[in-house]
Amino acid sequence: MIVQKIKTTPKKIGVFDSGAGGLSVLKSLINSQSFEEIIYYGDTARVPYGNRSQKVIIQYSLEALIFFKTQHIDLLIVACNTISAYGLQSMQQASSYPIIGVIKPGILALENTIKNKDSKILILGTKATIKSNLYQTLLQKRGYHNLSALATSLFVPLVEEGIFEGEILDSTMHYYFKSYPNNPDAIILGCTHFPLIAKSIAKYFDNKPLLIHSGDSIMQYLQKQYPLKPTTNPTKITFFASDNLERLKQTAKLWLNQP
Amino acid sequence: MIVQKIKTTPKKIGVFDSGAGGLSVLKSLINSQSFEEIIYYGDTARVPYGNRSQKVIIQYSLEALIFFKTQHIDLLIVACNTISAYGLQSMQQASSYPIIGVIKPGILALENTIKNKDSKILILGTKATIKSNLYQTLLQKRGYHNLSALATSLFVPLVEEGIFEGEILDSTMHYYFKSYPNNPDAIILGCTHFPLIAKSIAKYFDNKPLLIHSGDSIMQYLQKQYPLKPTTNPTKITFFASDNLERLKQTAKLWLNQP
Repeated sequence: MIVQKIKTTPKKIGVFDSGAGGLSVLKSLINSQSFEEIIYYGDTARVPYGNRSQKVIIQYSLEALIFFKTQHIDLLIVACNTISAYGLQSMQQASSYPIIGVIKPGILALENTIKNKDSKILILGTKATIKSNLYQTLLQKRGYHNLSALATSLFVPLVEEGIFEGEILDSTMHYYFKSYPNNPDAIILGCTHFPLIAKSIAKYFDNKPLLIHSGDSIMQYLQKQYPLKPTTNPTKITFFASDNLERLKQTAKLWLNQP
Repeated sequence: MIVQKIKTTPKKIGVFDSGAGGLSVLKSLINSQSFEEIIYYGDTARVPYGNRSQKVIIQYSLEALIFFKTQHIDLLIVACNTISAYGLQSMQQASSYPIIGVIKPGILALENTIKNKDSKILILGTKATIKSNLYQTLLQKRGYHNLSALATSLFVPLVEEGIFEGEILDSTMHYYFKSYPNNPDAIILGCTHFPLIAKSIAKYFDNKPLLIHSGDSIMQYLQKQYPLKPTTNPTKITFFASDNLERLKQTAKLWLNQP
């Protein structure tokens, strides 16, 4: 994984996601009050990416760079685990500014808290993210060996439908988690939709596992990489979408709890 | 709605769907043993269409025609309710061969059986199909007035996940149908994914409603339009997909119960 760096503090940043999922990352970026301007781009005309092939994900990711070309951003955050797993490297190679995905920051955030390498870690993600094996490989390299990974694809449409708790989610969790009889010490929410059902996921297990959230992880990571300072004005946010911009804005209002 | 006709019996036909949903229509076409060759094209790189805007659905539909240009088909069947609702007219205008959608055949199939115009009819579909109001308008024109329509979006990913019955589906049906306290006389399965959960949907209601299936409806329609004759050889089927062709073929094996 290539990590590019710039010395200067990023003031205007981009956030790229396949659709609305990246809003959970955007929320952490806004709350940090570290950026003057954020450009959010969701490829809502082709969402979701989670069941697509590597080839198509790379193609779509490179096409997003064409969009960001006119935005003059200092840094781009790939706020989607599937793109971070498959498209990030190609994007980094094709770009002059730094591009950061959510997977490495997630691993580092976990490592900060979970010191015991025997800890039971449960990785959740889309089919594509789990199949990429990236979380698993990076965790193994760091000595974690008690790993389980589950592609919990249905969590994505549930969140898109606005279902964050209740009967359907409970039976869906049971469907996926019945094959995992343990209480995990940590759960990697390896899809940016999943933080919206984090409470329900945590409640499912008895032992209050640590939940790794892509948005919080990437903020921790950025704070280590750059001398970020609080901005005086609220962050200016502009949304772009390849389809249904109004619906994305509606979802943003709902998820971000702000106009 | 424009319905184009050809005098000659179609021998080589195309089937276009956003992804795998059209396989339920393909099954009816194969079972009819009326066609020498069928070309199935699924736009799996951009599936699902059901939450997209009209503009994008039309754009994708016209792009599919470019694919079929090289296939020399006699007739194209749009095996997807969402495309039939939004893209069909643009496709028909842009094409030299007849293109038939699933909505009008569905209405005619219902009319064949449900003679009482006071009957309670429940229309199920994707968000886009329900929003198009097309089923509702066409039924009203024919005098049916006891109509309800529900966008049951989550049925699509459930079927894609291979969930055709059980706890998750039951709670999802309860989630959607609790706002519909009646026993419908007929249910329009207004999405080609839904026939795969038809048994579960029928079981949910006490009164054994008539289920309108897009595949069966379109075969009834074709048999009225053309002097179809049984072919001597089994229908030759070729699959094309904009992504993950192998996965589509796997799904086809599962859904069609044949190699």
